[in-house]
Amino acid sequence: MSVSAIDIIRCKRDGGILSESQIRTFIEAAAHSHWPDYQLAALLMAIWLKGMTREEASLLTSAMTQSGRRYRWDTIAGPKVDKHSTGGVGDKTSLVLGPLAAACGVVVPMMSGRGLGHTGGTLDKLESIPGFRVGLSEQELDAALRQVGIGMIGQSADVAPADRKLYALRDVTATVECIPLITASILSKKLAEGIDALVMDVKFGHGAFMKRVEDARQLAEWIVSVGNANGVRTQALLTDMNAPLGRAIGNALEVKECIDVLQGRGDARLTDLCLQLTARMIMLAGLEPDETAARARADDALRSGAGLERFARMCEQQGGDPNIVEEPARLPQAPFVQAMMPAPQSGFITEMQAEWIGRACMKLGSGRNRAEDPVDHAVGFVLLKQRGESIERGEPWLEVHSRQPGLPPDVEALLKSAIQIEDQPPEMLPLVHEVIS
Amino acid sequence: MSVSAIDIIRCKRDGGILSESQIRTFIEAAAHSHWPDYQLAALLMAIWLKGMTREEASLLTSAMTQSGRRYRWDTIAGPKVDKHSTGGVGDKTSLVLGPLAAACGVVVPMMSGRGLGHTGGTLDKLESIPGFRVGLSEQELDAALRQVGIGMIGQSADVAPADRKLYALRDVTATVECIPLITASILSKKLAEGIDALVMDVKFGHGAFMKRVEDARQLAEWIVSVGNANGVRTQALLTDMNAPLGRAIGNALEVKECIDVLQGRGDARLTDLCLQLTARMIMLAGLEPDETAARARADDALRSGAGLERFARMCEQQGGDPNIVEEPARLPQAPFVQAMMPAPQSGFITEMQAEWIGRACMKLGSGRNRAEDPVDHAVGFVLLKQRGESIERGEPWLEVHSRQPGLPPDVEALLKSAIQIEDQPPEMLPLVHEVIS
Repeated sequence: MSVSAIDIIRCKRDGGILSESQIRTFIEAAAHSHWPDYQLAALLMAIWLKGMTREEASLLTSAMTQSGRRYRWDTIAGPKVDKHSTGGVGDKTSLVLGPLAAACGVVVPMMSGRGLGHTGGTLDKLESIPGFRVGLSEQELDAALRQVGIGMIGQSADVAPADRKLYALRDVTATVECIPLITASILSKKLAEGIDALVMDVKFGHGAFMKRVEDARQLAEWIVSVGNANGVRTQALLTDMNAPLGRAIGNALEVKECIDVLQGRGDARLTDLCLQLTARMIMLAGLEPDETAARARADDALRSGAGLERFARMCEQQGGDPNIVEEPARLPQAPFVQAMMPAPQSGFITEMQAEWIGRACMKLGSGRNRAEDPVDHAVGFVLLKQRGESIERGEPWLEVHSRQPGLPPDVEALLKSAIQIEDQPPEMLPLVHEVIS
Repeated sequence: MSVSAIDIIRCKRDGGILSESQIRTFIEAAAHSHWPDYQLAALLMAIWLKGMTREEASLLTSAMTQSGRRYRWDTIAGPKVDKHSTGGVGDKTSLVLGPLAAACGVVVPMMSGRGLGHTGGTLDKLESIPGFRVGLSEQELDAALRQVGIGMIGQSADVAPADRKLYALRDVTATVECIPLITASILSKKLAEGIDALVMDVKFGHGAFMKRVEDARQLAEWIVSVGNANGVRTQALLTDMNAPLGRAIGNALEVKECIDVLQGRGDARLTDLCLQLTARMIMLAGLEPDETAARARADDALRSGAGLERFARMCEQQGGDPNIVEEPARLPQAPFVQAMMPAPQSGFITEMQAEWIGRACMKLGSGRNRAEDPVDHAVGFVLLKQRGESIERGEPWLEVHSRQPGLPPDVEALLKSAIQIEDQPPEMLPLVHEVIS
């Protein structure tokens, strides 16, 4: 029982600003179980209710990063840049922009998580590629970065252990939705990657963690400010997650869609977002002086096939089958592929609500409710129609890839509630709502 | 892991009012370890910061009372009334007013605690009486109430177990000072005594838990309102705890002072407070219609020796030596009794700060820092001079009863800092500052 624990809790409870040494004591206590969980929980609730300054969040982030393993790539030439998304439905941009950025000269040591709930995870998508290993050792990741310029792996358990501990507690004490804590949680793991710069894709809307654009903007501003304060050049894009991103939802189906994008025949809005994020990485890497030049370089890498080639090399480097690029049928295939969900009326699709589509896909087996659940890589959806497109009454809007024919009633109900058809087309806003730099 | 735990925490976190069923779930979880401690701690912090309505505190009190053993005295004739104090230095009123009230026809099932820190405890005082047993069984207490009209015992561990659990957590999570939680903690244990009415002695000032009279008043108002809402007629006195109460501090010395008071030759201010509290108990018991009549009845019981006689019978009933009344030297005696602490100047004592005197006495061995520490019943202080009295330079103001000659330097320093002497006498305010009914 630490006396200083009570003093630190009392300070925050009374609306005080925690000192650097108080924050370090707190985070070391979280990482090494120096305090009982009830003291951590009381302090988390006090932080939730009394907030933190950006300076406190910055110190918190730094302490959390230092609580565990930190990678260093000093002997590898070139700027190290990563992209991180707050999570969405059909968000497969990492698999496109990682290889594209690497093809443009950026070194990309990308560490990702698994999907949870209605949002997918990069690791699950990668693991749908036959043979692909996300569990590279530090030596293997080093080799991948030197030889291919990119390595995509899972966060090792020894990165930011304080965050692991605190996140688990926040999840069961109603202290998740707290900008300073979210900022520190995201950035502590990214700073541990040993990167020079970070592009954040902060999602807002129906399928995002932040439903309102104002909340997403606030989080983006905190992340940008705290990232920069910790010596990592950081910028953020606020992007629309009301409708699923692209056409495919489900692990192997999304890998297939990424190959389409890298082949230059992907969904236009998804392709544009991938290119904008890649361009931002190139700019932050210092490889081009402005957005126009950076975008041109990203476009070139796509058009020339350099991005696709880099994707195949990455697969091969990490034990995956590079031939999926030529033969996507090598990816896991679901036994049943059916066009379903006939439109109840003719008109324009004005809503395609991402969270319901994501939940339906999870229920089909492509996602998980609890971290320990397995996922089915083959199943998922392909949207035959996206938001903004016209549809005829009776025309199916969804291609279902599943283990069983038909759809379970709860999945069908979710899907029905996700779509809205009206006489007039909806206003189509750009995916990128704002850049925070 | 209970889902409803998170919902309940979130409700209070967001400033909501907890429903009766949410409060019952919380308190049952605390009593039966249904929730992990970190969820209880998060909720306690949310309550500390967001508060509770009196209605919530009333439901909380009721649920806490019902979490454990409840006594019932329906077959014993007469009104059952208790008095409870928030704790002070030299506060020995229970040992006087209990027998006095019993002598007046009130049935007094009094359950008390032990001393902690600078405040003394009724149980420790009682246990300084040779042979006195505070651990009566329910049957023994029943017999004591029938035969003597009073029983003074320790709280059994199965009374309000939810309070025991929550108090221990509050102590280590900086969530102690919270009016609704304090109210529920005090009253849940009192309601379990099966009483019809309760007189609260809420202390304020240097030696009290509440330093400011406004805070004490607020607590008193909550206790009165929540007690009455739970069917127990409750009134409160706000009393001054800036200076020690009476002349003696230390367990056996305080018992001796109580005998003096019951013999009609005690400290005037202490005696008056005991009589006021007794009168309030008589009024709330419904035995007299107004304060004047109730006070007259209490005065009579003192003057006639009925209170003293009841005190001796109580001692005998609980296994204690009733002859201490005639021969107080049968109480534990310290080997060294010395007049010490010469006044640094002549004048009037304008400050006699209770907390420092109480801490000095604790350091001498009469109190405890941790609940499991033993206490020395014989040691303590007798104030040769009290606040408001005149003193000559060099005249000692303290009689020290101790195991060793002299005083340890830290004790002496505490005592020196407790007293202030000035040329003019201080304003002497009445001990009872206010009655909340």
